[in-house]
Amino acid sequence: MVTSSAPGKVYLFGEHAVVYGEPAVPCAIERRARVTAREIDEGLRIHSEDLKLDGFTVEYDGDGAGRPDVDASEPLLEAAMGYVNEAVAQVRDAADVPDAGFEIRIESDIPLGAGLGSSAAVVVAAIDAATRELGVELSAEAIAERAYQVEAAVQDGEASRADTFCSAKGGAVRVEGDDCRTVDGVDNLPFVIGYDGGAGDTGALVAGVRSLREEYDFAADTVRAIGDIVREGESVLGSGDYETLGDLMDFNHGLLSALGVSSRSLDSMVWAARDAGAMGAKLTGAGGGGCIVALDDTDDALTALKYTPGCESVFRAELDTDGVRQE
Amino acid sequence: MVTSSAPGKVYLFGEHAVVYGEPAVPCAIERRARVTAREIDEGLRIHSEDLKLDGFTVEYDGDGAGRPDVDASEPLLEAAMGYVNEAVAQVRDAADVPDAGFEIRIESDIPLGAGLGSSAAVVVAAIDAATRELGVELSAEAIAERAYQVEAAVQDGEASRADTFCSAKGGAVRVEGDDCRTVDGVDNLPFVIGYDGGAGDTGALVAGVRSLREEYDFAADTVRAIGDIVREGESVLGSGDYETLGDLMDFNHGLLSALGVSSRSLDSMVWAARDAGAMGAKLTGAGGGGCIVALDDTDDALTALKYTPGCESVFRAELDTDGVRQE
Repeated sequence: MVTSSAPGKVYLFGEHAVVYGEPAVPCAIERRARVTAREIDEGLRIHSEDLKLDGFTVEYDGDGAGRPDVDASEPLLEAAMGYVNEAVAQVRDAADVPDAGFEIRIESDIPLGAGLGSSAAVVVAAIDAATRELGVELSAEAIAERAYQVEAAVQDGEASRADTFCSAKGGAVRVEGDDCRTVDGVDNLPFVIGYDGGAGDTGALVAGVRSLREEYDFAADTVRAIGDIVREGESVLGSGDYETLGDLMDFNHGLLSALGVSSRSLDSMVWAARDAGAMGAKLTGAGGGGCIVALDDTDDALTALKYTPGCESVFRAELDTDGVRQE
Repeated sequence: MVTSSAPGKVYLFGEHAVVYGEPAVPCAIERRARVTAREIDEGLRIHSEDLKLDGFTVEYDGDGAGRPDVDASEPLLEAAMGYVNEAVAQVRDAADVPDAGFEIRIESDIPLGAGLGSSAAVVVAAIDAATRELGVELSAEAIAERAYQVEAAVQDGEASRADTFCSAKGGAVRVEGDDCRTVDGVDNLPFVIGYDGGAGDTGALVAGVRSLREEYDFAADTVRAIGDIVREGESVLGSGDYETLGDLMDFNHGLLSALGVSSRSLDSMVWAARDAGAMGAKLTGAGGGGCIVALDDTDDALTALKYTPGCESVFRAELDTDGVRQE
C-alpha cells in the first residue's frame, strides 16, 4: 500500500492568454490531494471521502461499466470516475501489468471544481501511488506527461499541460504552448485564496474570449498584453519584490475583466483583499466565479475576505515547492 | 436679466487615454446648470443655492479679494468663485465692457465634484447669460473656447477641451487632442448614472496612469487599446446598436481597471447595473470613486443601483442633444 500526494495550483499570471500561445505562470499551492493505492486481485475499488462530493465510495469492476449508488451529482461523479479510470489505465501501461487490480482511496483538501487543479492533483498522485505499488518509480516529468494524457482523454482534448505539470513538479512553473518548465529560485509566495463557492462555465468563458479576440483587434492586443505581463512578471518572480508582483497581478486582473471573464463576486473579493492591504489580487483560472488569489504576507486580506459577502471560504496556501511525493 | 443653461457630461469612452492623444467620446446629459445674469452698476454679486455646497451666497467686489462668510469647504468655494471670476473676465472681454458689473445666480442639478462636468456647465451657461445680458450673442463654439480658457486658468493648465465643448454644443462629441467635433446622428442614449458620493484625486489618478504607461509597454498598449475601442465605438454610435455599445463600455471599463483607476464602489455599481441587465457599464471620468454610467432602456439598472451599498445616488440622464441655450 502506497500513499502519494500532489498539490493544487493557482495562476499567478496568464490564464486565458495561454490558449493563444502566450506564456503563463501557474504556481503549486500547499493544498494537496492524497491518493492511497493497494494492489488487489482484479478490478478497481475507489473510496473517496473528501472530494466535496459529500463522501462517496465506489466499487465497480475494471471495465468502468458499473454504476455506483452514491449521493453525488452525476456529472461530478462521472468526471471523478473518469479521471481515476484513465489514471489506472496509464498505470497499467507504465508498469506493463495490463490487468492489475487496485483499491484506491482519495482524500483532498483542494476544493473541487474551483479552478485550483484538484483533478490534476488527484490524477498525478494516483499515478505515482499506483505505479509505486507495482514497484515502478516514474520521474515527475513522466507522471506529468501521463497525467496530461488522462486529462486530455477525460476533457475531450481541452486539457492544458499546465495543471498536471505544475502538480507533478511543484513550485512556480512557466507554460508556453506545450513547453513547461520550472521557474528556478522561487521559494516563497504568500498566497491567500478566496472562493465564492461557485464556478464559471469554462467552455463558455474560453469561447467568449475567442469571439472577442476574433472580432476586435483591441481584444487581441489585450491578450498579448497579458503575455507581456507574464514576461515582465517572470523577471521579477525570483526577486521577492512582492509589491511589483502585486501590481502586475492587479493589471492582469483588469485585462481579464476587460475580456469578460471576471464576475461580481470575484471583483468583490479582489477589492476586499486590496483594501485590506494585499500587494495584489486577481481571479485565478477560467473566471466567471470560483477563486481569487491575493498576495499578502499579513493576516489582513485573510480576515477581510472572511467577512466579505460572497466569499464562501478563504484560506492561506503558500507556494508549495514540492510536487508529487510519496507520503 | 438673462438665464442660460448648459448640460453636464459623461464619458461614453476614452477618459485617461485622451491625455495621450487617443480620441474620446464625452456625451452631454440631461442634467443642467442654470445661470442667471443681471447687469449691475459695478462689481460682482454671486448667489448659489444648489451647487451641493449647502447653499451659499457670496457678495464681493470685482477684484475677487473679498472673502465670503459661508458654510462650505474652502477649496470648493474657492474653486466656484474662481470659475465665476474668470468667466466674468471672459464676458467683459467678449463684450468689450471692461468694467461691467453683474449679479449672478447659479443653480445646478449636476452633482459637484463627481466628474460630470459641473464646473464646465456653470462656466458655459454663465458666459452665455452674461454676454447676452450685455447684448452680445456668441456662437456655441466661441463660448466653448472662452469657457476652456476659464477652466485652463482655474485648473492650472490641466483642463481638457472636452467638458466645455460638450457642454456648449450638447450631444455626443469626439475629442482628439485640441480637435473637438460633434458626432452626427446620435439622438438617444439611455444613460443611467450611479454616484458613490465621493471623488478620486484626479491628479494622482492621471499621474498613476502616466507612470504605469512610462514603465510598462503593456500599459502603453492598454492606453492604445482604449483608443481603438473609441474608434470602434464611433462607428456604432449612430446605429442604435446598444448591445455592441454596451460591450465596448464593459471592455473600456476593464482596461481602465487595469490602469488602476477603478475602485471598489465603482466596480460594485458597475456589476449591479450589469447584473440588472444593463447593456454595458463603466466608470466615467477620472475614476477612483465618483460615477459610473450604464446603458439601460429599462428601469432595472436604476432600481438595482438604488439598493446597491455604496451607491449614494442614482438617476437617469439621457443624452442631451441641446448644448448651451437661453432659458
